[in-house]
Amino acid sequence: MIKVGILGAKGYTAGELLRLLPGHPEVGLTCLMGRVEAPEPPAAYFPALRGQIDLEIEPIDLGAMARRCDLVFLALPHTVAQQYCPQLVEAGIKVIDLSADFRFDSVARYESVYNVKHLAPELNDRTPYGLPDLFREDIPGSPAVAIPGCFPTAALLALAPLVAHEAELELDGIVINALTGVSGAGRAPGPDYHFPECNESLKAYKVGCHRHRPEIEEKLERLAGRPLRVTFTTHLIPITRGEFLTITLSLKGEVRQTDVDGWYGDYYRGEPFIRVLTGGATPTTAGVMMTNFCDLAAVVDRDGGALIVLAAIDNLTKGAGGQAIQAMNALMGWPETTGLLARRLTTTV
Amino acid sequence: MIKVGILGAKGYTAGELLRLLPGHPEVGLTCLMGRVEAPEPPAAYFPALRGQIDLEIEPIDLGAMARRCDLVFLALPHTVAQQYCPQLVEAGIKVIDLSADFRFDSVARYESVYNVKHLAPELNDRTPYGLPDLFREDIPGSPAVAIPGCFPTAALLALAPLVAHEAELELDGIVINALTGVSGAGRAPGPDYHFPECNESLKAYKVGCHRHRPEIEEKLERLAGRPLRVTFTTHLIPITRGEFLTITLSLKGEVRQTDVDGWYGDYYRGEPFIRVLTGGATPTTAGVMMTNFCDLAAVVDRDGGALIVLAAIDNLTKGAGGQAIQAMNALMGWPETTGLLARRLTTTV
Amino acid sequence: MIKVGILGAKGYTAGELLRLLPGHPEVGLTCLMGRVEAPEPPAAYFPALRGQIDLEIEPIDLGAMARRCDLVFLALPHTVAQQYCPQLVEAGIKVIDLSADFRFDSVARYESVYNVKHLAPELNDRTPYGLPDLFREDIPGSPAVAIPGCFPTAALLALAPLVAHEAELELDGIVINALTGVSGAGRAPGPDYHFPECNESLKAYKVGCHRHRPEIEEKLERLAGRPLRVTFTTHLIPITRGEFLTITLSLKGEVRQTDVDGWYGDYYRGEPFIRVLTGGATPTTAGVMMTNFCDLAAVVDRDGGALIVLAAIDNLTKGAGGQAIQAMNALMGWPETTGLLARRLTTTV
Amino acid sequence: MIKVGILGAKGYTAGELLRLLPGHPEVGLTCLMGRVEAPEPPAAYFPALRGQIDLEIEPIDLGAMARRCDLVFLALPHTVAQQYCPQLVEAGIKVIDLSADFRFDSVARYESVYNVKHLAPELNDRTPYGLPDLFREDIPGSPAVAIPGCFPTAALLALAPLVAHEAELELDGIVINALTGVSGAGRAPGPDYHFPECNESLKAYKVGCHRHRPEIEEKLERLAGRPLRVTFTTHLIPITRGEFLTITLSLKGEVRQTDVDGWYGDYYRGEPFIRVLTGGATPTTAGVMMTNFCDLAAVVDRDGGALIVLAAIDNLTKGAGGQAIQAMNALMGWPETTGLLARRLTTTV
Repeated sequence: MIKVGILGAKGYTAGELLRLLPGHPEVGLTCLMGRVEAPEPPAAYFPALRGQIDLEIEPIDLGAMARRCDLVFLALPHTVAQQYCPQLVEAGIKVIDLSADFRFDSVARYESVYNVKHLAPELNDRTPYGLPDLFREDIPGSPAVAIPGCFPTAALLALAPLVAHEAELELDGIVINALTGVSGAGRAPGPDYHFPECNESLKAYKVGCHRHRPEIEEKLERLAGRPLRVTFTTHLIPITRGEFLTITLSLKGEVRQTDVDGWYGDYYRGEPFIRVLTGGATPTTAGVMMTNFCDLAAVVDRDGGALIVLAAIDNLTKGAGGQAIQAMNALMGWPETTGLLARRLTTTV
Repeated sequence: MIKVGILGAKGYTAGELLRLLPGHPEVGLTCLMGRVEAPEPPAAYFPALRGQIDLEIEPIDLGAMARRCDLVFLALPHTVAQQYCPQLVEAGIKVIDLSADFRFDSVARYESVYNVKHLAPELNDRTPYGLPDLFREDIPGSPAVAIPGCFPTAALLALAPLVAHEAELELDGIVINALTGVSGAGRAPGPDYHFPECNESLKAYKVGCHRHRPEIEEKLERLAGRPLRVTFTTHLIPITRGEFLTITLSLKGEVRQTDVDGWYGDYYRGEPFIRVLTGGATPTTAGVMMTNFCDLAAVVDRDGGALIVLAAIDNLTKGAGGQAIQAMNALMGWPETTGLLARRLTTTV
Repeated sequence: MIKVGILGAKGYTAGELLRLLPGHPEVGLTCLMGRVEAPEPPAAYFPALRGQIDLEIEPIDLGAMARRCDLVFLALPHTVAQQYCPQLVEAGIKVIDLSADFRFDSVARYESVYNVKHLAPELNDRTPYGLPDLFREDIPGSPAVAIPGCFPTAALLALAPLVAHEAELELDGIVINALTGVSGAGRAPGPDYHFPECNESLKAYKVGCHRHRPEIEEKLERLAGRPLRVTFTTHLIPITRGEFLTITLSLKGEVRQTDVDGWYGDYYRGEPFIRVLTGGATPTTAGVMMTNFCDLAAVVDRDGGALIVLAAIDNLTKGAGGQAIQAMNALMGWPETTGLLARRLTTTV
Repeated sequence: MIKVGILGAKGYTAGELLRLLPGHPEVGLTCLMGRVEAPEPPAAYFPALRGQIDLEIEPIDLGAMARRCDLVFLALPHTVAQQYCPQLVEAGIKVIDLSADFRFDSVARYESVYNVKHLAPELNDRTPYGLPDLFREDIPGSPAVAIPGCFPTAALLALAPLVAHEAELELDGIVINALTGVSGAGRAPGPDYHFPECNESLKAYKVGCHRHRPEIEEKLERLAGRPLRVTFTTHLIPITRGEFLTITLSLKGEVRQTDVDGWYGDYYRGEPFIRVLTGGATPTTAGVMMTNFCDLAAVVDRDGGALIVLAAIDNLTKGAGGQAIQAMNALMGWPETTGLLARRLTTTV
């Protein structure tokens, strides 16, 4: 059993880790730190934890954290994460970083998108993109792992099986429409997330300028072997958890539904967290809520001349804390499902 | 003051008419009929009407309705509406039909899309499409008006200003993503609309086969002068009222935001129900809730190489009952805003 | 037509006034002021008003307001309202105050409950409690009217018909359980009203210390002619609008349902905004949403030995802005329903 | 590891069992049966289970179930459960019954409340009430256990520590106000649970006639040693999961908050699923969502002369499926928390 800590323990991502880690048999939680003035009980932020945890959230002290942990989940905003990550790595601590700071292969692209200087470009080069379902081979042996953004997770999982099919599909001009629940905006109150303002309403946000678009494009390029441009529009939906993507690609010719089902079925055969729906079934966010699954369906729209790919994840689980644990498992050499999948229900007792 | 009736008085569309008609100075409501065994009070279906209405919902009797009304709102399902509409028209009653039965110019297209024989093709030819903001000149003098579907309303209003700009925009392969609140599914209970099933979830439905797509395409062709194919994906969102469309078109070259704002501003100058948002403002369904407005914004997404058009309406108002009243106003020669827009708030008392 | 203004024009109460006043035939809105640095369009706070209003929200200037208005709605927090109200009254402006500052007959009680010195006790004595359905005779001729709290409105309307029935009911130890939508908490964002925190959750708040309890008790004493003590527990419910009260009183002996129905029917005969439900019907907040109605039902619970009184209002309408307009109507000598009730739907056109 | 089955496998209670049982180390699920015509995959009813379960839901066959199981969860409606339970018991199968059929000590009371003849009175006498936190000593050795209703669970847990304090509290005339999410109404669609009807609304239901009241009273009598009458009013709230009770009792004299905290603290010392909140903290349903906890707080309302007891549970967990597993644990002699509580998070790894 290794000792793990969470840095940035007050936010919703940390909350998801705190929900999941007690079920993980290989880790013990030994340290919670965050932006607090004095130690505070986690239940002040996560009432469900009342009485279930002996740790307090302490003010940040990297030295103490390094002494008490083998691995740290960094659940801090971008630009802050890159201030702490190098020190922890130097102290020999494995880091699972949930911010955007180490997600880009290209430091220049990161600096352009986030409009900030990268403080640890050398470490960035050694930090793989922690989407194990697509890129698991990069993870073992690395000092740190960068957990993808929630939208890129769903978008890349939805699109990966398609990039080999340029003969049948127009890969330029992919249109991604994304819906997210409000927990995706984090815990900080603000007018846009005030209940009476966002309840019973629908809106788009960051139209044309969401920073997950270049992240999607950089990894798509890696998958496709050439640059691909996507259009990406995000919407805030009055639910707490859940993310739903609708991706539209033009068909170049006649494509059969069974062909498409085959592409997905082959691509994700044996993947424990990817469920490919066929036969008219389509994903819902309720169907993946509080799970690490990504549910996918690709529907040939003959009349529209398009392929419609639908993807549902829980933005806090597969889109953040669950994926972080999956990446930790990949890093530590444990089965990726450890602590994330319940025992299968089966007639064979 | 003319006498109006509602046929199909139990559904949500009728409820919206019952919400709005008391504020209309030119009409008196004289008859409610619907699929009831015996007369029932409207408050049984619309609790807000308790004590506010003397009429009962009576079993359907077209003769009685014709004797008691000058104009009838037909709020019945498709295939049923076309059974009643001709009789009412023959009796000299003006009909505002909220079903799909008379929406298509092409009877053949209707029959193909709805998979049913049209019973009144001759009347169909004399029934204009009741989207006054775009096609108001067709309405006066007609015996009946076909109220558009809710999604076509928003889609056509969003796209109309663009069809003249084929030089700058790729008009083929328009991608329409549509979100709707659950009232759009009507009043009949079912597993998909059972609160615990649809609350806190997101899903797509009728993927690749929604019957509003051909309706959009037929009218787009009329606007554009040539066939245009769209991809159209609809989603059920756990709110009661509201419809939001995100439409993506590829840019052919450099297009400036100010140009696009100009296209919309010019096209809709003076339209009382179309509000074009600029300067970074984008629509929300809360902003049009229980109003007949369609709020629009078109955003140039330079990085994505696309124009993103956002449209919000209330599916029950501009998408059904409000539009029906607007169309009635156009038919009767009254100002279109009659009964639909409150007095403007102004310093000039 | 008189000229009216709103002081405190950014909050939800002001929003409700802005929704309703355009439909009021006797008033013109001439002035909006609030805590802004520079003039701002109302649509910045109320998107539905986009394009519907020529006024801006200006920084507070009492002199200018007095010059431009005959009557002012004061929609400011308690303690602030009493700073402005006297000046406006001295300038001859009628004031409808929506704060708590002038609600109490007893200045001492106000000072004790709100823990603040009253700045205008003399004016307090001349400011009647603006619950016209119960106390309309106090209103005409007064310089200002104090609009009741939302919970006291519903509680007093529910209890008023009962205080004469001490023979049948135990009037001490009345238990009031109150549920409110989140708009009742106002527009200021905070952790308790952050969507992911209050969505899909239920909680009580201000248990044992809500300041509406003494307000209820003071007015109940006036109705009953002796002090009555109530228990009052409030709950925050994840809906935007609506307030629901469940009031439990012990029965002293055998009481028949028809007797109770009679008490309510007699008490509220002819009241335009009070709807007494009988025959098993019970109120819902949806049934009064965006209306000035208070729906009531009193159910004899024989097994529990109790009378259960249920009351539903819209906290922003009958609980705030609608009631303010009703009180203005009473003050100005207009029919109380002016601007608040649509034309009755009737067979007599 | 024992073999367990679920009879009535399509409903929400079964869904909760299916969510929880994979995490229970002592049981294997071997049989799902329900009212289906032919075998159906559980994922048709519970999309989250897609790919996670090999069993199908089969048509009911008690003999087959008895052969394949050691213990059966009966998740069927009342009156149906008592038809199946005796047969299973006779076959030597342990039964955890989630219906109301065996909840009452008094068969006569059951027959009066449910207006039906009891088919197995002898078995009823041997079936203890499965609320282990209060009555765990009854459970071992019994052939079947009757799981309490959701409201009685919360009400009894909230009131049990008080019945010994008749000197300080008025135990007659206890007022219980209960709020429940819509999953409490089960899976069958109906007008009251149609999303647009119950969303954004509040209502009371079964006022004065809810069948959980006599269940509460019977068990309260057992706790108190004398009959106690309660008033009980239930409300439907537009959330999916969660139940909240507000219980009001009159104080007989001066009672200090610390005394009350002491009563609860002493009574529930060491109980793993009862969390007593003090120091101003109050329960929320979000804080117990998808857990088997009952969170309690008792607040002395000095001004109201009352004690306000607040209780929150998840109606599907502690109110149904979680409690059923806790009762099974008690029956089988396993620690009650088995499969229900995650490992405690602690500094001691």
